[in-house]
Amino acid sequence: MLDNLSATKVSGGWHKQYSHTSISTHCPMRFAIFLPPGASQTNKVPVLYWLSGLTCTDENFMQKAGAFKMAAELGIAIVAPDTSPRGDNVPDEDSYDFGQGAGFYVNATQAPYNTHYNMYEYVVNELPALIEQHFPVTDNKAISGHSMGGHGALMIALRNPQNYTSASAFSPIVNPIDCPWGQKAFSHYLGHDKSAWAQYDTCELMKKANENDYLPMRVEQGEADNFLVEQLKIENLFKQVNEKNYPAEINMHAGYDHSYFFISSFIDEHLLFHQSYLQAQ
Amino acid sequence: MLDNLSATKVSGGWHKQYSHTSISTHCPMRFAIFLPPGASQTNKVPVLYWLSGLTCTDENFMQKAGAFKMAAELGIAIVAPDTSPRGDNVPDEDSYDFGQGAGFYVNATQAPYNTHYNMYEYVVNELPALIEQHFPVTDNKAISGHSMGGHGALMIALRNPQNYTSASAFSPIVNPIDCPWGQKAFSHYLGHDKSAWAQYDTCELMKKANENDYLPMRVEQGEADNFLVEQLKIENLFKQVNEKNYPAEINMHAGYDHSYFFISSFIDEHLLFHQSYLQAQ
Repeated sequence: MLDNLSATKVSGGWHKQYSHTSISTHCPMRFAIFLPPGASQTNKVPVLYWLSGLTCTDENFMQKAGAFKMAAELGIAIVAPDTSPRGDNVPDEDSYDFGQGAGFYVNATQAPYNTHYNMYEYVVNELPALIEQHFPVTDNKAISGHSMGGHGALMIALRNPQNYTSASAFSPIVNPIDCPWGQKAFSHYLGHDKSAWAQYDTCELMKKANENDYLPMRVEQGEADNFLVEQLKIENLFKQVNEKNYPAEINMHAGYDHSYFFISSFIDEHLLFHQSYLQAQ
Repeated sequence: MLDNLSATKVSGGWHKQYSHTSISTHCPMRFAIFLPPGASQTNKVPVLYWLSGLTCTDENFMQKAGAFKMAAELGIAIVAPDTSPRGDNVPDEDSYDFGQGAGFYVNATQAPYNTHYNMYEYVVNELPALIEQHFPVTDNKAISGHSMGGHGALMIALRNPQNYTSASAFSPIVNPIDCPWGQKAFSHYLGHDKSAWAQYDTCELMKKANENDYLPMRVEQGEADNFLVEQLKIENLFKQVNEKNYPAEINMHAGYDHSYFFISSFIDEHLLFHQSYLQAQ
């Protein structure tokens, strides 16, 4: 059961928000979808899943990325889920980098988080099934995201390469087991046994990736990003990409920071990147 | 004295926010400027002034319109002032459509508003002088805006046709003397003598416009805009444009509402429209 919350015409297509009760997170979840002009049951379109960063909801990307003109032109739907379970019954903490708004796209194993904080299951399985059931889309999927969502996108793609044509990220947390944001979240959601952490770490997953499972990847990183040194550690991804000869293009951009102004500057290039693989399917 | 509050690279150019003490509004005012790549003292660029709507600050357009890619390509700077004086000393009212965030681009004559609420003077004279003094821009100016800011843009252009190459608007309040938003604001800022209102009314100003002062105008209006019938009254502008044979293109768009999703859908066309006149100077 999908509850339609809004429908707004944009760039010839439609931006719509929905709420539904999630079987993964055991609470109502909100997501947004952009449907390009002409999408219909007889003209199904591929989908780019966008995972947002800390504190975000389904709205940040949709309002600030400036992605619709190009997505409309290319005929790509975009789906943006929320970044965590939410609600009065969902455990929370009074900080921006943990709890509601900071699900980190894992399945929590630790109480009291393990009932609701199952964003991995939600994004990998429940949401795509729901989208493919209710909207005029094919099962061709790409995935992208920003910061915590960039971690989510690359990590999910590495674990489920058969599900996606391509993956990309802006300013991703590429090595959460080795930075304060990731260590805080993983210790609460997954416990202090670090052996459970590697399955959610892009660098660790890439280290073990089988060449047959490689998929095209593109990453943008601003060099004036305040979080680059302590939290994002793009150099750790460089290292893995080089060691594994992984087909990942990593673009460093002088002067750009961590904001949506950065995303809006290069989102068209990411849509074109994904389109070349979505179309080839 | 300009106080620089932020500087963010976007689309190859820079988005910057400044604060300064205004001689028009007798309080600190914040504005934002987008400078396209390559703007310099030896390569000055023209400026599009953007006036925002009710409740907005300098941020709404800059974050949500998706204008920078095209503005960068065309080499146009964009300046977005706040929509009113602000601060603890500035008279306010607990409503979204009057007081702070709702200056209506007039010079108030009525106490207690007449000290600070002089947004007409600020936008027409003080701000452009400041911009031309401190930034690498020419004195070629165009003006645009949304809703209350669409009213501001068309009204200011009609009163100062020598200052602007062209004017445009999204979902403008074209006849404020004849709608609840305008009547509420004008009665507080200008008093109950309606003879003082006409100088701030687009339809009234167009009625008296001299053909030698005509300037190119473009207006977009969504047909699914909740405010269309009661507040915006685009049909009143149609009437004046036809009676005066004014060179204003008014485009109605089925399905579009009053939001920034509408603005983002057509902002590129407005930038191209203004560019054709800014370049001809």
